[in-house]
Amino acid sequence: MKRLLAAPLALALTIPASAQDDPAPSPNQIVESAKASDWVAIPAEDLLVMTLAPDVQGNERQVVIQLMPPPFSQGWVENIRTLVRTGWYDGISINRVQDNYVVQWGDPNVDNPEAEGEAKPLPEGLKNTRSSDYVEDKDRDQHSIGGNRLYGYTAMPRVRVDWGLHEIRSEDAYAPDAGFVAGWPVASDSDEIWPVHCYGTVGVGRGYSPDAGSGAELYTVIGHAPRHLDRNIAIVGRVVEGIEHLSSLPRGKGALGFYADLTKRVPVRWVRLASDLPIAEQPRLEFLSTKKRAFRRYADARANRHDPWFIEPAGGADICNIPVPVRRVAAPVAE
Amino acid sequence: MKRLLAAPLALALTIPASAQDDPAPSPNQIVESAKASDWVAIPAEDLLVMTLAPDVQGNERQVVIQLMPPPFSQGWVENIRTLVRTGWYDGISINRVQDNYVVQWGDPNVDNPEAEGEAKPLPEGLKNTRSSDYVEDKDRDQHSIGGNRLYGYTAMPRVRVDWGLHEIRSEDAYAPDAGFVAGWPVASDSDEIWPVHCYGTVGVGRGYSPDAGSGAELYTVIGHAPRHLDRNIAIVGRVVEGIEHLSSLPRGKGALGFYADLTKRVPVRWVRLASDLPIAEQPRLEFLSTKKRAFRRYADARANRHDPWFIEPAGGADICNIPVPVRRVAAPVAE
Repeated sequence: MKRLLAAPLALALTIPASAQDDPAPSPNQIVESAKASDWVAIPAEDLLVMTLAPDVQGNERQVVIQLMPPPFSQGWVENIRTLVRTGWYDGISINRVQDNYVVQWGDPNVDNPEAEGEAKPLPEGLKNTRSSDYVEDKDRDQHSIGGNRLYGYTAMPRVRVDWGLHEIRSEDAYAPDAGFVAGWPVASDSDEIWPVHCYGTVGVGRGYSPDAGSGAELYTVIGHAPRHLDRNIAIVGRVVEGIEHLSSLPRGKGALGFYADLTKRVPVRWVRLASDLPIAEQPRLEFLSTKKRAFRRYADARANRHDPWFIEPAGGADICNIPVPVRRVAAPVAE
Repeated sequence: MKRLLAAPLALALTIPASAQDDPAPSPNQIVESAKASDWVAIPAEDLLVMTLAPDVQGNERQVVIQLMPPPFSQGWVENIRTLVRTGWYDGISINRVQDNYVVQWGDPNVDNPEAEGEAKPLPEGLKNTRSSDYVEDKDRDQHSIGGNRLYGYTAMPRVRVDWGLHEIRSEDAYAPDAGFVAGWPVASDSDEIWPVHCYGTVGVGRGYSPDAGSGAELYTVIGHAPRHLDRNIAIVGRVVEGIEHLSSLPRGKGALGFYADLTKRVPVRWVRLASDLPIAEQPRLEFLSTKKRAFRRYADARANRHDPWFIEPAGGADICNIPVPVRRVAAPVAE
């Protein structure tokens, strides 16, 4: 959970006596004092476990991704479940690591400048694959997308607002409003709401056509939030554990951060839904409900730091600087 | 320069014919077409060259930092010049790598939870060292700071606005306004202007007292912009080359991302001002003048992506998502 909670640049680690009298709680402290009922379990069906080849010292590298719940991006999410269950992701690789931008994994022989071999055939039943739906017409007003609105321009990951949205007061540079829905950061205007790109967001790589991404090629953000990608590419999840195994990879030296030296590619050993793993191996994670008062206090504290190290509270925060807290919990004891 | 220019997640790398008819230029293309006179040379006196120990494969690791020009943070910048010229930084180490936050380097025996040996004595003549100026009184309204306003609360890195500021129209979550001054991202209110924390920003670590940082402990941002640190800690520069040598380091597993395993610390071999190196070894870098039309076009294109891959231009951008372009230029031929 540490990853999600920024700590002050505290160099003197003892708090002077005068600051201990009545210190305002830090965001971390607010999260730590949240009640058990403030936390929401993430269903095992929504967790992807991705195991990379061990690092050079032989250390295990496991990344856990939470898939986005309805109503967002469910076409792509279903494709991802199909790709997982058919074992398609097993044996692919991390092909691109671009500093302050993204890490991307997929078929090493497809859609990248360093591709050199045969493409791996995609499983049957995928929606929105390029072979069936790729649209050549680039006129922005005429995305016909084979009649399937879910996967075309009009179905980029946003839906109409007709449900509760907790707004923080901070201005957003990219949209009239920003806030959180069901544990996810979103932006909205008067008609629609859409998930946004923050650190750790997972999305679907695509080509020039807006519906070109099947889910076989995925990326995650490892730098400042590339919010200009919002509504331009499908967001399907977020890394909830192990992002350091991706963010600390050597940067690629080819175009767009692809590995020009193909030996740098990191093999993806396997990807499974947590629910398909033995109970004892299933990661159990919870997020802090964004509907609860504890979250609102946490968000307010992130925007107005009054804990002892701070001098000048900002009075605001951007949506990606209020990461939704996620924690690992112990598995229930087997009967 | 690639680091500073985000590229679309282009998977299909050939642009279809219909998109080639009249494509809007990308931000990169605008930068590439800027005139020579749109670029400003960074003085060698303002460039720090930091050489780390080689990586495990024996590759060189050099990081170049541009020091902040007047009027910002000049007390700390002068301290840094003193620390460099007395060789104080030579032999220190990178002690902290916290994911989505900062990399920090300094004396491995000071101010971190893993410190275990004797502190390295600081050189004479530093302003604002903790030994002379550390203020025990934490009452936020009474920072007396030994009478030296430059280094105390009132002198956190911001100055009054009385010079030109090109504003972009995007809203800022942290301040009434944001824009660029002399090639640096800043925020402002009706009275003051201050530099802001973006990816690659370099600042001065400090303890609980606002004037506790001498410049001996430095950090750089390797994640989403921690703008809540603005006005709470002194910004003294930015990494203009080689940030991948810092951002891709293994994350520390101790508190705040300090290396609990002390063998993970990366030695800093030496730090020099570029102007103190032999001419042939001086990096020569330029930034795109933020006063020029080319920069305004670039900023506008970052906020309104109309190049072929994009479907829905955002209509705004946050200040840290408009990185000021920096490029390396060839050294003049020796006479």
